[in-house]
Amino acid sequence: MKDLVQRMLSGERLALARLISKVENRDSELPKYMEALYPHTGKTQVWGITGPPGAGKSTLVDCLAVHLRKQGKRVAIVAVDPSSPFSGGAILGDRIRMQRHSSDDGVFIRSLGTRGKHGGLSHATKEVVLVLDAAGFDVVLVETAGVGQTELDILRLAQTVLVVLVPESGDSIQVMKAGLMEIAHVFAVNKSDRPEADQLVRELVMMVGLNKHDEKSWMIPVHKTQATRDLGVAEVIAAIQAHQEHLTVSGERLLKASEFLKNEVAEILSERLSHTVMAAFDTRSGKEVLEQVLNRKLDPYAAADLISGV
Amino acid sequence: MKDLVQRMLSGERLALARLISKVENRDSELPKYMEALYPHTGKTQVWGITGPPGAGKSTLVDCLAVHLRKQGKRVAIVAVDPSSPFSGGAILGDRIRMQRHSSDDGVFIRSLGTRGKHGGLSHATKEVVLVLDAAGFDVVLVETAGVGQTELDILRLAQTVLVVLVPESGDSIQVMKAGLMEIAHVFAVNKSDRPEADQLVRELVMMVGLNKHDEKSWMIPVHKTQATRDLGVAEVIAAIQAHQEHLTVSGERLLKASEFLKNEVAEILSERLSHTVMAAFDTRSGKEVLEQVLNRKLDPYAAADLISGV
Repeated sequence: MKDLVQRMLSGERLALARLISKVENRDSELPKYMEALYPHTGKTQVWGITGPPGAGKSTLVDCLAVHLRKQGKRVAIVAVDPSSPFSGGAILGDRIRMQRHSSDDGVFIRSLGTRGKHGGLSHATKEVVLVLDAAGFDVVLVETAGVGQTELDILRLAQTVLVVLVPESGDSIQVMKAGLMEIAHVFAVNKSDRPEADQLVRELVMMVGLNKHDEKSWMIPVHKTQATRDLGVAEVIAAIQAHQEHLTVSGERLLKASEFLKNEVAEILSERLSHTVMAAFDTRSGKEVLEQVLNRKLDPYAAADLISGV
Repeated sequence: MKDLVQRMLSGERLALARLISKVENRDSELPKYMEALYPHTGKTQVWGITGPPGAGKSTLVDCLAVHLRKQGKRVAIVAVDPSSPFSGGAILGDRIRMQRHSSDDGVFIRSLGTRGKHGGLSHATKEVVLVLDAAGFDVVLVETAGVGQTELDILRLAQTVLVVLVPESGDSIQVMKAGLMEIAHVFAVNKSDRPEADQLVRELVMMVGLNKHDEKSWMIPVHKTQATRDLGVAEVIAAIQAHQEHLTVSGERLLKASEFLKNEVAEILSERLSHTVMAAFDTRSGKEVLEQVLNRKLDPYAAADLISGV
């Protein structure tokens, strides 16, 4: 088992892929793997990329990867798609995307989809990022495909979040306003050759300006991009790297790392608890408790007290 | 406090609304309220209604309510909208929708939105349903606006799920196929005056037919509706009521009730745990643990062991 971690640390691709699968499948030996690889973490930058469907996120993410490679950085792309039956699968499969980077050992791409319960995906993504961190990737790009609450949970694990928008009707922006300002550190207005692009840029700049801020706080920059023609991408990268610098200087980096780790610990305990509870309901006294709740002789909160004691 | 529950049980609207707010705001006295109202639960039917944006869910839900009122049933509508900044708010406000039923004491409407963490919404919705159950509503219609993973979690609390679709491109159906069959008990093809409606009905019927089933299992019926003209709605209600009958006869009702209550207990404990963990990190020894995790001297799983002992 430590052998697998050793092989991953020495750069073996197959070992890395197998470790990630173990995280996805919630392998029972995960604590031991984490113990072995965790001391090697703490160096990677995690960038989150999100935006509405059709904004061109995947193309932009691929561009970011190409630029980062030119800077000599090793890059991992984690494409997270917690798609429901209605949203469908928005992210291209690993194989198609790998083609662009197929001859490059410095790029690693992996898609994560929903397995089991919702909470699991956000937790698994966090641990996949830790594995990639230990594997020595300089930047991990976490791209979320969907537009729901799960994706927002996942973005909390990124230090810098790039929100990709496209010029469309102005109304929709009004709706998103409050929520976007909370998650974005950099805005990219993609497909900026469209006529309404400048209008959208103006609206975003005004939105940013209306937010309270002093000299020390981060002012969200707005950049125009055309990912398909590789235009404006270098500027976006510079903005993200400036935000990373800001995190270090302002002390926010340490705060974010603390939050990330507190949540990771909480999720480990929560996963353990959910197993414990279900096992408790399978015992004889657990079954009696359930029987009493079903018969309305015991309410769920009282049952919770009893079950946690089983 | 018991007074508030008593007033709710005797039919006072204001008391009901206040109790629901207490559930939404995770009032610290919730266990006591639940203890008082829980013995009065266990009689309501919970119907879930979902589908892609623009399928006409809200209109259909209002029609269902009107029909159920004609059957003499008291109806509650819970519209759940865990909308992210990208999806926007898809559900009309309570006030607008209330107008149609404003003179009718037998209809209660409430919207629930995201507060705090994701997990919270699904848990709160479950407890709102318990409150409405105790308040004596015969049917609770839980309508989910969005299309993400959170909504699917929420639908698990319904005994019968109606999936509303509209005739559109055939491809999308292929994508949804697997997921839809898992959650639907009845299909409604709404806006069935559109030209591709019959094609969609055929595809759905074929999909249902391909599923393995024996005589005892539920065969998902497919109905055409035009909610705006109140066409086909009676047939949908009959189908849902047939499914409710099937749940009783097959013994599935008891299984579903058990799952509902086990999950409710698990979520109560999980909510409690997350408070405990965050409090533990605020103690002196908790801060030392976090410090060691940040310095990579302790991995998150080992930290979890220590924190649960703080």
